[in-house]
Amino acid sequence: MSQANIGVVGLAVMGSNLARNLASREGNTVAIFNRSYEKTQTLLDEHPEAEFVPASTYEEFAASLSKPRTAIIMVQAGKGTDAVIDALTEVFEPGDIIVDGGNALFTDTIRREKAVRETGINFVGAGISGGEEGALNGPSIMPGGSDESWVTLGPILKSIAAVAEGEPCVTHVGHDGAGHFVKMIHNGIEYADMQLIAEAYDLIRRGTGKSPAEISEIFAEWNKGELESYLIEITAEVLKQVDADTGKPLVDVILDQAGSKGTGVWTVQTALDLGIPVSGIAEAVFARSLSSKPAQRDAAAALPGPDENAFRAQDEDAFIEGVRLALYASKVIAYSQGFDAIVAGAEQYGWDIKKGEIAKIWRGGCIIRARFLNRITEAYAENPGLVALVTAPFFVDVMEKAQVAWRKVVADAAYAGIPAPAFSSSLAYYDGLRADRLPAALVQGQRDFFGAHTYKRVDKKGTFHTLWSGDRSEIEAVDSH
Amino acid sequence: MSQANIGVVGLAVMGSNLARNLASREGNTVAIFNRSYEKTQTLLDEHPEAEFVPASTYEEFAASLSKPRTAIIMVQAGKGTDAVIDALTEVFEPGDIIVDGGNALFTDTIRREKAVRETGINFVGAGISGGEEGALNGPSIMPGGSDESWVTLGPILKSIAAVAEGEPCVTHVGHDGAGHFVKMIHNGIEYADMQLIAEAYDLIRRGTGKSPAEISEIFAEWNKGELESYLIEITAEVLKQVDADTGKPLVDVILDQAGSKGTGVWTVQTALDLGIPVSGIAEAVFARSLSSKPAQRDAAAALPGPDENAFRAQDEDAFIEGVRLALYASKVIAYSQGFDAIVAGAEQYGWDIKKGEIAKIWRGGCIIRARFLNRITEAYAENPGLVALVTAPFFVDVMEKAQVAWRKVVADAAYAGIPAPAFSSSLAYYDGLRADRLPAALVQGQRDFFGAHTYKRVDKKGTFHTLWSGDRSEIEAVDSH
Repeated sequence: MSQANIGVVGLAVMGSNLARNLASREGNTVAIFNRSYEKTQTLLDEHPEAEFVPASTYEEFAASLSKPRTAIIMVQAGKGTDAVIDALTEVFEPGDIIVDGGNALFTDTIRREKAVRETGINFVGAGISGGEEGALNGPSIMPGGSDESWVTLGPILKSIAAVAEGEPCVTHVGHDGAGHFVKMIHNGIEYADMQLIAEAYDLIRRGTGKSPAEISEIFAEWNKGELESYLIEITAEVLKQVDADTGKPLVDVILDQAGSKGTGVWTVQTALDLGIPVSGIAEAVFARSLSSKPAQRDAAAALPGPDENAFRAQDEDAFIEGVRLALYASKVIAYSQGFDAIVAGAEQYGWDIKKGEIAKIWRGGCIIRARFLNRITEAYAENPGLVALVTAPFFVDVMEKAQVAWRKVVADAAYAGIPAPAFSSSLAYYDGLRADRLPAALVQGQRDFFGAHTYKRVDKKGTFHTLWSGDRSEIEAVDSH
Repeated sequence: MSQANIGVVGLAVMGSNLARNLASREGNTVAIFNRSYEKTQTLLDEHPEAEFVPASTYEEFAASLSKPRTAIIMVQAGKGTDAVIDALTEVFEPGDIIVDGGNALFTDTIRREKAVRETGINFVGAGISGGEEGALNGPSIMPGGSDESWVTLGPILKSIAAVAEGEPCVTHVGHDGAGHFVKMIHNGIEYADMQLIAEAYDLIRRGTGKSPAEISEIFAEWNKGELESYLIEITAEVLKQVDADTGKPLVDVILDQAGSKGTGVWTVQTALDLGIPVSGIAEAVFARSLSSKPAQRDAAAALPGPDENAFRAQDEDAFIEGVRLALYASKVIAYSQGFDAIVAGAEQYGWDIKKGEIAKIWRGGCIIRARFLNRITEAYAENPGLVALVTAPFFVDVMEKAQVAWRKVVADAAYAGIPAPAFSSSLAYYDGLRADRLPAALVQGQRDFFGAHTYKRVDKKGTFHTLWSGDRSEIEAVDSH
């Protein structure tokens, strides 16, 4: 009976594609199970080439797997996942491996790993990026879980992952929830990247009057250089698409209200807990929520602004190149902030995450795959203790080349009334990080004034308080309160 | 025995001051209790004028209160609060009222209210703003809880609240956690307001070379006009303070790393859950966390930027007036976003919150008290269904006067390399809100491309998907997935 080395539970599009991917690789035999057998039958019928081992009950499914049994759950995140885990723990044995390949919140994964571990079964939360197409042809995979599970799971995941420069886009990220945590940050960076691209498009369109088709060509051109990435590539595709109904550019008939599935929100909420400023990601999340408030936007349409048509770039080529540089610099900031969150998460949860490896496995298969991830890997290889990605020599050089243009783009956007929240927020973050002195000192003074929150001094140790409502002398505080 | 109409549990500074405030008002007799009697004795000794009714046990405390017994808990938020609530529910009876006057997270208050309600006792979460000084002389109070509790509690709280234009700064905000929710948003707005002031100070200092003492005079002047507010007032005080040790301005010897107590983080996390862009508050929280990363700041100090000394405002007076206008406009945005969060919270949790009343009770006692809160009250009185505060006629007028200068300030900051995250983020939000079309349409196109997330169209109902990896025709989707 035990013919399969790997199983998939949940055969919706993502699960089916992952099962087909697994079955197509040398050495794998794939057991499949779905709550309703109908989907199992469909998959069998449509893909006779795949030699699946179908099961109609969890018992059959378990019996069809060789030990240690290894199964990847591909169901909607949430309660469904818990139900499947419960069912599998009943039919699996100690040493077996349950993998959750959905988009679970990493704290749920930590909780589940702890609970399942008590049964002796391994539980692995694995982030899988690349959408339906990635699941079928090679995703980027971010598994957490125990070292023991990685021994069995590693070769299987390596067999199906995307390959970038000869290396499979999968690594053992860290224990318990580390994989889903890193996948969450990946998605957060994806939000920032998409928003930056959207701002670049909007600036070029409104600053030069070029059509979406013309801007498509600009993005296609950019994709040949240092900005080369999947998101730039598909932006060119989306912008050149013409709506068959109206003959207009598709981007002009799509309703300009962006939706989201929540991982961007999770990223920002988690970063806030960790004390990490992820302003690029936050502005991207906010830009989407702002766009989806039609009643407010209608009411605000008459708010005063500059004459929109008055703004036109003087030198179009220079303007477009400036936007490209602003996009590149802002993107570096978004990644730098994202990696800060990874470092803080690793510290908070005790994960040994190799940052360079994360950049490596994002080079292929996933939505944010990009040429410049190699530079991130190199930066961490050169200096594993790098305190901020943007301070690595390569990225300092990017900033050197980009910062003047970046400033002009942010200023142009402000004068022109074109919203560029992610561009301008990234620049403000950059200037804050490199500032010799910040007005945070004034904030500390205010806090001490109204709440006796105390402050530290630049010239001596200790914690101090000024008797603001007394004689305004300074006292040393025993502790902050 | 039952001589007191109100009791206070927890006699640290805030509790002691609130007890003294209560005792000083006609008609109140105040029972006091602290876990260790020492603090109770100290309060009795130091304030013999107050005629407190001390208790050394919860039983005595309960016996000393007339019915319905009403007690305000003033202990550190968290487990301490739960312990006191448990103790009081044992000695109180149905109809009595337990008030939590600490800075509890509103979801904890919702949970506690539900649990306590089962005993028949009323539980009220009340936000109290104004710090130690406000507690003593008149805070702004934001109570939630049941209508029944408000009958007894209302007159007591009115007796101790700050008074603004003849009206006590307290209102029954809404049921269960509504009070702590609104207090949380208050604190979030406070973060934004402080950050905006800090940016204004930094811009003037670096843009004109004026000294903190000179800038103190500018803030004192501003405080006579439409920006009149407690935070502007104390900023002038902090900036003019000279350090006795060094003879330098105090703001120059305070370490420029801003701390926080967490309510700003809560506000942003909650707003993210509610889908409300609170970018001004988020940037303020991020600016504080950025400032508190000395290792990163040290490493980033050498990052390329414009020559700082190269920037100098041409016309100082015009520059300063521009900063004032930018501050005013950005502040309107911060409040507009904060009220959006209140509206969304009220809808989510079923609270009947009167927005104009909230602005009214913030006019006195609390940290964000400001003249322009009258304008907010008026705006909601004129149009209770106002969909965005910034679209009220008075604020449209503010924007009309400010927007050109605001744009110049954001552009100047970008060119000069002076971080102005809250100024620039507020402007980007403003321009996003009033934009006819947003590049969110491109984001929807990207999401449809890589994840088949579908999109809506501007010209017809339904949900659509382009077969990007097929013939690129458009199909109508049954539902989004």
